[in-house]
Amino acid sequence: MSLTVRQMAALVAGEVVGNGDAEIVDARPLTDAKPGHITFVEDDRYLDAWHHSPASAALVLPHVPVNGRPLIKVLDPLMAFVSIVKHLRGNSPAATSSIHPSAQIHPTAVIGTDAEIGPFVVVEAGCVIGARATLLAGATIGKNCRLGDDVTLHPHAVLYDTTVIGNRVTIHANCVLGADGFGYRTQGGRHVKVPQLGYVEIADDVEIGACTTIDRGTFGPTRVGQGTKIDNLVMIAHNCQIGRHNLLVSQVGIAGSTTTGDYVVMAGQVGIADHLHVGDRAILGAKAGVHKDVPPDSRMLGAPATPDREQMRIMMSLEKLPELRRDLRKIKQMLGLPTKAEGKGETKE
Amino acid sequence: MSLTVRQMAALVAGEVVGNGDAEIVDARPLTDAKPGHITFVEDDRYLDAWHHSPASAALVLPHVPVNGRPLIKVLDPLMAFVSIVKHLRGNSPAATSSIHPSAQIHPTAVIGTDAEIGPFVVVEAGCVIGARATLLAGATIGKNCRLGDDVTLHPHAVLYDTTVIGNRVTIHANCVLGADGFGYRTQGGRHVKVPQLGYVEIADDVEIGACTTIDRGTFGPTRVGQGTKIDNLVMIAHNCQIGRHNLLVSQVGIAGSTTTGDYVVMAGQVGIADHLHVGDRAILGAKAGVHKDVPPDSRMLGAPATPDREQMRIMMSLEKLPELRRDLRKIKQMLGLPTKAEGKGETKE
Amino acid sequence: MSLTVRQMAALVAGEVVGNGDAEIVDARPLTDAKPGHITFVEDDRYLDAWHHSPASAALVLPHVPVNGRPLIKVLDPLMAFVSIVKHLRGNSPAATSSIHPSAQIHPTAVIGTDAEIGPFVVVEAGCVIGARATLLAGATIGKNCRLGDDVTLHPHAVLYDTTVIGNRVTIHANCVLGADGFGYRTQGGRHVKVPQLGYVEIADDVEIGACTTIDRGTFGPTRVGQGTKIDNLVMIAHNCQIGRHNLLVSQVGIAGSTTTGDYVVMAGQVGIADHLHVGDRAILGAKAGVHKDVPPDSRMLGAPATPDREQMRIMMSLEKLPELRRDLRKIKQMLGLPTKAEGKGETKE
Repeated sequence: MSLTVRQMAALVAGEVVGNGDAEIVDARPLTDAKPGHITFVEDDRYLDAWHHSPASAALVLPHVPVNGRPLIKVLDPLMAFVSIVKHLRGNSPAATSSIHPSAQIHPTAVIGTDAEIGPFVVVEAGCVIGARATLLAGATIGKNCRLGDDVTLHPHAVLYDTTVIGNRVTIHANCVLGADGFGYRTQGGRHVKVPQLGYVEIADDVEIGACTTIDRGTFGPTRVGQGTKIDNLVMIAHNCQIGRHNLLVSQVGIAGSTTTGDYVVMAGQVGIADHLHVGDRAILGAKAGVHKDVPPDSRMLGAPATPDREQMRIMMSLEKLPELRRDLRKIKQMLGLPTKAEGKGETKE
Repeated sequence: MSLTVRQMAALVAGEVVGNGDAEIVDARPLTDAKPGHITFVEDDRYLDAWHHSPASAALVLPHVPVNGRPLIKVLDPLMAFVSIVKHLRGNSPAATSSIHPSAQIHPTAVIGTDAEIGPFVVVEAGCVIGARATLLAGATIGKNCRLGDDVTLHPHAVLYDTTVIGNRVTIHANCVLGADGFGYRTQGGRHVKVPQLGYVEIADDVEIGACTTIDRGTFGPTRVGQGTKIDNLVMIAHNCQIGRHNLLVSQVGIAGSTTTGDYVVMAGQVGIADHLHVGDRAILGAKAGVHKDVPPDSRMLGAPATPDREQMRIMMSLEKLPELRRDLRKIKQMLGLPTKAEGKGETKE
Repeated sequence: MSLTVRQMAALVAGEVVGNGDAEIVDARPLTDAKPGHITFVEDDRYLDAWHHSPASAALVLPHVPVNGRPLIKVLDPLMAFVSIVKHLRGNSPAATSSIHPSAQIHPTAVIGTDAEIGPFVVVEAGCVIGARATLLAGATIGKNCRLGDDVTLHPHAVLYDTTVIGNRVTIHANCVLGADGFGYRTQGGRHVKVPQLGYVEIADDVEIGACTTIDRGTFGPTRVGQGTKIDNLVMIAHNCQIGRHNLLVSQVGIAGSTTTGDYVVMAGQVGIADHLHVGDRAILGAKAGVHKDVPPDSRMLGAPATPDREQMRIMMSLEKLPELRRDLRKIKQMLGLPTKAEGKGETKE
């Protein structure tokens, strides 16, 4: 399948600059594009890479000047590129409403219209599932769960009993929602389980990554707010209340009963202690370890986490620390102060 | 369903103070309780929240004074509250002994009495499973495993061949026990697998969280001791010997052949290097990175981990580090020492 | 079953020193060996443990002197020990080519010869799978995947559509390959998904641990190179290009578009930011946090990661930091400098 640059421009409502009749056979990002391919440049940082790329054409921002090869000018080169890739690969066939004969749907469960339910799916008693659900192979839904419309469960995602899911929610493979929170009382030398009687509630437009776990609340809900996106292998403990439009990157861990505001961003491997609050729009850098409430609009780094400017100053000073010790030793000698204790056990330095 | 305060007190063997005839329609924790609800106060820290709560009654410790609303005095308000919540929600129906027709139980496997086995469960050849097992949808048990009585496997938990599980063990969804340890020899530029011929052995009364992985030993067992509780997304590597009554919080990682004593506590995201020993009752703070043996009864923080008081002193000093550098520069100027090297590349500060 | 030391030596082409007629009933590592057992000593560090061990014989390196008990001298005691353990336990029965009747293989999928396919396995439309595949219970392969020869998928491993797998690849239980990368644009206060149209490509001789997740590329492949071994609970984000013969230990997280050279080693819980390159043979210590490109042959420690010698010097200095502050205060007093600011809020020290 091939298209001209002009045909592609029509697809994405873009403006052709240069030879609109050039034939394009594939669409590839800058790192992989070859002659005959169209690519995209979504930021001026990549203009140099585009100039050195063998690609035959590019989707660019309106201000980019032509330099010999045809351009398609659009306001969002990345999303335009997505449309072209999808077009070149052919549209996926419309999902046909179907329930695989091996799926085990309890007779008391209610499934909305146009569902696609794969092999070995389990839907237990009392579930109510909205329209256009996609439940892929082995997805398992416990008793009395409620799912909104347009929910996708990827293979082997597991919802424990009484989980509540909003509309347009996507849950990736092997994700577990609603397992028991980690709550014990120590009595007579044994850890006695505090029964976990709550549930998990996921609002609309949430996406949750593969192998992520969100535990049920002790009595009430553990909640994830509207529009929040959660990456793979994240842990959200019991009773947490995650706000709206948060971004939680892979391997983040949030301990019990912690709450977050809206538009919070946590980079990879962040850890947050229990019973804290992270304010609106706070940004936590990778591997931050948070032990105190985080004010709104703050940027935190490090473990223990501090405001980022403070942490940067500490980091910079840290690199100078061995030098600083040498200076101090020199000053002590100069002033006739004893240096023995400081020098102990440092013959290697 | 509603109950009077007096009826609730009878349920939990507590003492009514105030109006025992007040009608209660639901039980909610302090954060969610509304008029008509009973709540609980398990610590004097929360007395103020109780005074400002709209709840109509509370389960409290015996010493709490009455202040207008009825109280039920009990020795353990949390556990009494659990009983009341369970009562209000109705008892779950008794598990009926049943094996789902889709489950694949090998003819040589032996299943104890009163088992509940869900759809798509797999029990391979040679397994011996005790009484009252609950194997939920898709739980998969490899060849020659032995499980004690009252074991629960949540959906899609996987036991590799020859896993040994004690009595009253609960294993949550998508947990994997007995995958191969990460053992390779590098020969001729290739990593050659050291066959992992051991197994995993879990003692009585252990609970293991969702998506946690415990690898089989190289030749013998990887062991988890009696009463130990393990949270979600924890990694225990091959040949580890975890002691009794440990608490391992989410995302902890323990490298190969490390052993722990009894009553060890590891907070979230702790990492422990291989071939170490962590002594009885040691407590490792969140994100600690342990590279040496840990003595019994110690509390460790930081990466690399040090005793907590030492680490706190270091942390406190760290915050002062930029200031300390400025002081030192001043002193050097005062003493006529050169400050050029130290100042290099720091024009921004 | 028992064998003489001489029979065992024949099995592993080793040289008997001492009594070759001694009867051996089991093979156990040094930590567990008892009288009647053979053990192995693969490093002189363990010679002392061997001298105090009750084991009746040992596999040793050629230079180890005899001391009363029979020895078998071999060049690789560990691998010789593996052979003996396997022999004593009896060979596992040859895998019989078989497809479980419950497996759902799409009629357009092509399965090579001698496959072993377990219960509840799913192979979707358009898949091409090589010879001698082992697909264990519940393994799930999406549409249009291509797998080479001798591939093993453990229970409930999930491959999303269009995943490409080489020869001799092993994928452990609950591993997820090809879930959507974590890519969003924020538009009008909402995180809008960037469709993830790429795939995952795994080269020959790779092994991937339990509950590990590797996301599909945005447009092209996320790649793992030949011979690389990945432990449990590792995260590899979209568009990463992992080189050949890497070793990635448990709970490592690598952010989007990062690339690695050959023979890179990452210890447990390492985190690497996005769009970086880690050079050939670099070694990253446990919990390292990498924010810059890593040169080949370097060893990095700490978060933020620095060359290991630098980090060791920083670590050593850190322990001295409280002392250093005391020294500085003394000097300031001596020089008549004000110490008030420095002393603020430190009454506890």
